[in-house]
Amino acid sequence: MSKSINNLSISLADVQAARERLRGSIYYSPCAHSQVLSAQTGQQIYLKLENLQMTGSFKERGALNRITTLSPEQAKRGVVAASAGNHAQGVAYHATKRGIRALIVMPLATPLVKVTATRGFGAEVVLHGANYDEACDEALRICMAEEMTFIHPFDDPLVMAGQGTIGLELLEQVPDLQAVAVPIGGGGLIGGIACAIKESRPDIRVIGVQTSRLPSMAAAIEQHGPVTLESATTIADGIAVRRAGDVTFPVVQKYVDEIVTVDEDEVASAILVLLEREKTLAEGAGATALAALIQKKTTLTDERTAVIVTAGNIDVTLLSRIIERGLVQDGRMIRLRIHLLDKPGALAELTKLIASHRANIVDTLYNRAYYGVNLGNTAIDITLETRGREQVAELLAALTAEGYVHSRVI
Amino acid sequence: MSKSINNLSISLADVQAARERLRGSIYYSPCAHSQVLSAQTGQQIYLKLENLQMTGSFKERGALNRITTLSPEQAKRGVVAASAGNHAQGVAYHATKRGIRALIVMPLATPLVKVTATRGFGAEVVLHGANYDEACDEALRICMAEEMTFIHPFDDPLVMAGQGTIGLELLEQVPDLQAVAVPIGGGGLIGGIACAIKESRPDIRVIGVQTSRLPSMAAAIEQHGPVTLESATTIADGIAVRRAGDVTFPVVQKYVDEIVTVDEDEVASAILVLLEREKTLAEGAGATALAALIQKKTTLTDERTAVIVTAGNIDVTLLSRIIERGLVQDGRMIRLRIHLLDKPGALAELTKLIASHRANIVDTLYNRAYYGVNLGNTAIDITLETRGREQVAELLAALTAEGYVHSRVI
Repeated sequence: MSKSINNLSISLADVQAARERLRGSIYYSPCAHSQVLSAQTGQQIYLKLENLQMTGSFKERGALNRITTLSPEQAKRGVVAASAGNHAQGVAYHATKRGIRALIVMPLATPLVKVTATRGFGAEVVLHGANYDEACDEALRICMAEEMTFIHPFDDPLVMAGQGTIGLELLEQVPDLQAVAVPIGGGGLIGGIACAIKESRPDIRVIGVQTSRLPSMAAAIEQHGPVTLESATTIADGIAVRRAGDVTFPVVQKYVDEIVTVDEDEVASAILVLLEREKTLAEGAGATALAALIQKKTTLTDERTAVIVTAGNIDVTLLSRIIERGLVQDGRMIRLRIHLLDKPGALAELTKLIASHRANIVDTLYNRAYYGVNLGNTAIDITLETRGREQVAELLAALTAEGYVHSRVI
Repeated sequence: MSKSINNLSISLADVQAARERLRGSIYYSPCAHSQVLSAQTGQQIYLKLENLQMTGSFKERGALNRITTLSPEQAKRGVVAASAGNHAQGVAYHATKRGIRALIVMPLATPLVKVTATRGFGAEVVLHGANYDEACDEALRICMAEEMTFIHPFDDPLVMAGQGTIGLELLEQVPDLQAVAVPIGGGGLIGGIACAIKESRPDIRVIGVQTSRLPSMAAAIEQHGPVTLESATTIADGIAVRRAGDVTFPVVQKYVDEIVTVDEDEVASAILVLLEREKTLAEGAGATALAALIQKKTTLTDERTAVIVTAGNIDVTLLSRIIERGLVQDGRMIRLRIHLLDKPGALAELTKLIASHRANIVDTLYNRAYYGVNLGNTAIDITLETRGREQVAELLAALTAEGYVHSRVI
């Protein structure tokens, strides 16, 4: 074991050692150039697809590095983690694959699909507590009681070094790399990557991206130490961490050049871009780094930039809503409220007009009694698929020209 | 140019020559092992992700091989293709990148987004004809009139040899490969791959998969020559080809071991599996090969099998519908029609019961006058997100126990 682990920091040697331990057990994920995203951002974009790891996220790297450094006695007693998400699956998969007992504590409200997935990877799951903090307390209690080893999701030098192996791969995969954009939750991923990259090639810029709902690392940098933020919900739930790590913070402070934030809509839009243009599924946290580049939030201009797509474990019902919202934003779907005379044929005339503009009606809500319309009138809400803003503008102009009173429903 | 081109067939040498021409211009797409799909199918599954090519499909390979073998005179005059889909984009992208004029004829009803994408890759687009056949006739007319070169989407030895380069990559990427599953439209892709593989390693089984809506190659094999089927619509529109190719048919007949078909629902389900488990977006045609393995349609048992995910250009509104349908099939979304007494508090009682079973109401349709309910009663359609079949069964039992008359809305 390297000396630096004792002083709770990491060096390039720790990351290199992690790489040897992980070899053959972690997918060497692709990092291909994207012409479409390069054109869109003005940079040369390379996407590192960590969403393609076995359990759908990079978290396996840190978990496995921690697991492979257990003593035989520790391995016999097993490991404990608290997580409702990707860390749980990473620990569960790699521990049980090695015959090590894995016990995961998840908050009571954890969706069944995540519980099932984690059990599917062979872990015992304990449901406890109203939130992550309470689940974590229970995990620590179990650790003490049963003399098991707690695996922290980020605030551990071995976990950080494991995540840093991504940095070594980037140096091999992207010739003349100039910048890296990395999502930040607790700081384990960016800490490891920044250490690996800055100690190898100090000229490469390392940019961190947080959700504007929980900018805990940005706050820590500003206030020269970790501070606890109010909890908040975000589409990027994988990086919803209220307080930067004590181990990760100094590493981030030392190596990271810049931290920026992105909003919910920007993340949703980046998820849609990754899906439609790159054919790859990212969860909210996994799309934040790209969102920052698309929205030009960083000081980067035209650098050759690797973007980490960290994870892809998004609920498909949420995805379905994101697609719909994205279509509305792009003008490819629109909902109109149109007032009609309450007489036979009124709807037939309206739908004929809509059809002549080749918009596709996907939903209608017909209502006679509400919306404050005049007695004897009625209103209909129509949801339309269109080919974009131009077609919408033409259709609205035609409705007005034909005397329809209409408005957009948000 | 190799001799075999003149006799309209291909050999391994043609595919190897294509590979040299394509080098550096085509993405060497990943072909990773999938543990989840291996467990699901009983085989060792490797996914070849051709949906990650620049234009979202493998079609670039054949198009580029054809383009790089144009004479200088032919290159000066330009190329023509007829396609509303992936072939159009492949030709457009690689021709214009080399300064060669590309003219694409698309049927009049082609969605604007595809026209825009093809123009975006630098091609001139001519909209003509009510269907593919009429567009194709116009493309051939233009070729004759302007002495340009027609690039067929599949029935051309050079196109077939280009697609075959996937076969050579598979031999490198999957150690001890035992089988390959390939979607079939016109036969260009499977012809090229089968030639490359069978002439290198005759022991590897090559399985073709068609949509049951248009099994034109299966029909050709059965009837010892291409026959024209009635046109049909399918979610796998990329392989909706009514007649097998005259050039491709003998190659497929010679090298392919087995052809099976899959239904619409099976394709939709495979799209959802690829998205949720593999984090990758496939269009209908792109998911057919995997669908056949999931549904155990082939004679394969536990082989080490490469599955070609051919393309990912699916409209996201269609995807949204596929997600919803998949959720309904999995019992993760359900629509119930529940009869209520038309009195204050009736809905409050019902929603309280639903909430106690932790199902999430996403949509309601409240209707007093229809559904043939008794006067004085009312009926409500409620769409619920649930955690799976078990939770649904519990909820339905609770509704019955509380005296609600309810039925499932399909």
